[in-house]
Amino acid sequence: MKKDGNIPYKTYLEENEIPNKWYNVRADMPVKPAPLVNPGTGKPLTMEEMEPIFCKELIKQELDNDTAYIDIPQEVQDFYKMYRPSPLIRAYFLEEALGTPAKIYYKYEGSNTSGSHKLNSAIAQVYYAKKQGLKGVTTETGAGQWGTALSMACAYFDMDCKVYMVKVSYEQKPHRREVMRTYGASVVPSPSMETEVGRKINAEFPGTTGSLGCAISEAVEVALASKGDYRYELGSVLNQVVLHQSIIGLEAKAACDKLGVKPDMIIGCAGGGSNLGGLIAPFAGEKLRGEADYDIVAVEPASCPSLTRGVFAYDFCDTGKICPLAKMYTLGSGFIPSANHAGGLRFHGMSPIVSQLYHDGYMRAVSVEQTEVFEAAETFAKTEGILPAPESSHAIRAAIDEALRCKETGEEKTILFGLTGTGYFDMVAYGKYNDGEMTDEIPTDEELQASFATLPQIPDAK
Amino acid sequence: MKKDGNIPYKTYLEENEIPNKWYNVRADMPVKPAPLVNPGTGKPLTMEEMEPIFCKELIKQELDNDTAYIDIPQEVQDFYKMYRPSPLIRAYFLEEALGTPAKIYYKYEGSNTSGSHKLNSAIAQVYYAKKQGLKGVTTETGAGQWGTALSMACAYFDMDCKVYMVKVSYEQKPHRREVMRTYGASVVPSPSMETEVGRKINAEFPGTTGSLGCAISEAVEVALASKGDYRYELGSVLNQVVLHQSIIGLEAKAACDKLGVKPDMIIGCAGGGSNLGGLIAPFAGEKLRGEADYDIVAVEPASCPSLTRGVFAYDFCDTGKICPLAKMYTLGSGFIPSANHAGGLRFHGMSPIVSQLYHDGYMRAVSVEQTEVFEAAETFAKTEGILPAPESSHAIRAAIDEALRCKETGEEKTILFGLTGTGYFDMVAYGKYNDGEMTDEIPTDEELQASFATLPQIPDAK
Repeated sequence: MKKDGNIPYKTYLEENEIPNKWYNVRADMPVKPAPLVNPGTGKPLTMEEMEPIFCKELIKQELDNDTAYIDIPQEVQDFYKMYRPSPLIRAYFLEEALGTPAKIYYKYEGSNTSGSHKLNSAIAQVYYAKKQGLKGVTTETGAGQWGTALSMACAYFDMDCKVYMVKVSYEQKPHRREVMRTYGASVVPSPSMETEVGRKINAEFPGTTGSLGCAISEAVEVALASKGDYRYELGSVLNQVVLHQSIIGLEAKAACDKLGVKPDMIIGCAGGGSNLGGLIAPFAGEKLRGEADYDIVAVEPASCPSLTRGVFAYDFCDTGKICPLAKMYTLGSGFIPSANHAGGLRFHGMSPIVSQLYHDGYMRAVSVEQTEVFEAAETFAKTEGILPAPESSHAIRAAIDEALRCKETGEEKTILFGLTGTGYFDMVAYGKYNDGEMTDEIPTDEELQASFATLPQIPDAK
Repeated sequence: MKKDGNIPYKTYLEENEIPNKWYNVRADMPVKPAPLVNPGTGKPLTMEEMEPIFCKELIKQELDNDTAYIDIPQEVQDFYKMYRPSPLIRAYFLEEALGTPAKIYYKYEGSNTSGSHKLNSAIAQVYYAKKQGLKGVTTETGAGQWGTALSMACAYFDMDCKVYMVKVSYEQKPHRREVMRTYGASVVPSPSMETEVGRKINAEFPGTTGSLGCAISEAVEVALASKGDYRYELGSVLNQVVLHQSIIGLEAKAACDKLGVKPDMIIGCAGGGSNLGGLIAPFAGEKLRGEADYDIVAVEPASCPSLTRGVFAYDFCDTGKICPLAKMYTLGSGFIPSANHAGGLRFHGMSPIVSQLYHDGYMRAVSVEQTEVFEAAETFAKTEGILPAPESSHAIRAAIDEALRCKETGEEKTILFGLTGTGYFDMVAYGKYNDGEMTDEIPTDEELQASFATLPQIPDAK
């Protein structure tokens, strides 16, 4: 194995070097992300309007565009010690296999039981719910990483956890479901017959296998109907989530600084934008403040290309259209990726923070097709020893592509990417790839145009 | 969270502190483990007799009762850096939940893709096979941890890997199978119709769902029939495996020494004995040399109680009776645990090293029933955030029991246990437990006596 000076394979921060504040990138953005809007009034949501849905402290974080550093509560810091710091890994084995002069690093968020970075925000959100004296929380989950993370957080704080799981995942991923149950959550396939919106969607689309947007609608309805005992928690998209996920970027940057490493390029996969927004936060902050430059790249599936082919507009976050509107890059809240898309990152929209940074030119985006994503995943699994989640493998694909470009040009670029999670619960998709049965299907322009036509007509509400 | 002085939640050694030699506990044993015996001649197996089955260098390690420290090849050390050092974790959260004055530590071997400690020996075994110029290796796997580990090692060294997977696991764990395929292994349900022994067992027991002993027979037959291109590799029981697994104990001890911690009690789950033998090695070494005393405890399932209810005698390692004989605590090579046993650790025998240490009074053994094991697993998952493998949860159960005893007596015992792996692929068993459908079935004395009657009549061959 080649070795680069004193750079070890894995770098862990010491326990007392784990950041004790989250970084709020909005504080450094010249143009702030647009506020959430009440679809009824077309006006920015007030604190009061949000309170039936979200915990108070989380609403404050959602609305706070100014405070650069926000204290991580001691209880959350304690929990972080269970699985953090996560390692910053130098991909020596992958570099060697590719024969590239590029130096590749990845921040690995998969070695906790939820299997992904989602736990970083779940524990914070449940902490605030507990502190507010609630009985429990509701949420949706697709592949199940967020639902698992929230279940773990609820088990830790002894809170009820009700998870609406997209029906197709509920059926195809019984093991993921069982992990949530093991952590004490109740898991309901969505659309269910338990909610008004679920019954409506079931009536309108008999036999539907559900969607994330629809599961969100159900979870929100249940929280609203609880008359204050429950609140809804969301694992991505929101400003608060990007705030919590900044722990990824802060740790990554601290480790880079410790090693004397400055990445030229930072790559993250992008679904709702939680991992990406968190990973890039401190780097984007330096870029926004003009202190350093980084090539920041979002990688999304060609089957669900919100940044590269979507529009920047106000849209619903959910299919049932009961959630607030967010200004974001979106494919339309009715957009559902092709049924054979197995690579995750299926959300129709994108975090308003990431959307604004992208819109203002602080980052760029690429899209990749799923067969090439799984090819990259297998290369990575065989060389680096970690079986990556399909989601994370979008970032791997882009990192490998860049490393191969460096091989041609001879550039010794330093690439940092986010490895958000593991693929243990995605073996059906891997099996399809192993059997040569995976296909690539991307939406046509006509399909996207039809979807855009359904966007709500809301002028900017800044 | 309570905190104990400067003891962090997790302790990682630095990369350059990872041991570069394995420790061979046999060197310090006054009575060496009995040699493997040729069932035909009743005489100890010679190097030459073993060569058709095992790699040369591994045979040397198997036979070496004298060298205390054996160099870890550089290539294996490099690979270890992918996932080692593994953390030594102070179970602050579990201690708090139990309200115990005991100090609990665990060495966590599950955060690599194979999901267990098995990779420690797999990479060494495949390295020696590669070095010997072989095409590939064959093996058996039950739950799939060893097969996955061997597949990963083979992918890394670009070797063929043929895995005979116990049929019931092959069918119930398609995802585990797919992980192995993703790493390029070919996975065959056992008993298959590809081997003589497989066809024979299928004819004798139509519809059989297989056993580990039977899968071993098939894998050995295929290696023997390859005329030298393939060798057989075994993930447990053998002396060489315990040697490789000593990395667990060496790291654990180095971390303890760094923290100034001396465990009073060391607990490991015991199936074939690989994890237990590795974890305890350096501690048992000190005990054997009279330098320190430790209460060393093996924990086995009450459904497969080789140490606590077996006999210490020569027996076959496989059902097909084509393997050499080992002197070990055994339930008889025909013993198969009750079908509703879901907790792993199903092997009928026990590592000769562990057996001898137990026989000579250097350690003790306890057995636990599976419902109490899963209860401990869930407590652990909820408090420490790691979803443990059922196998590992045997050690958790014993550690919790001891911690609760300390709560009664007020003793501040320091307990170290091995957390060998994760339970992501055991959710069917967890589901059974969650649904209240798990039962405990232990073999009757009559069943065991009948099984002992089938033991080969081999006098000690020392």
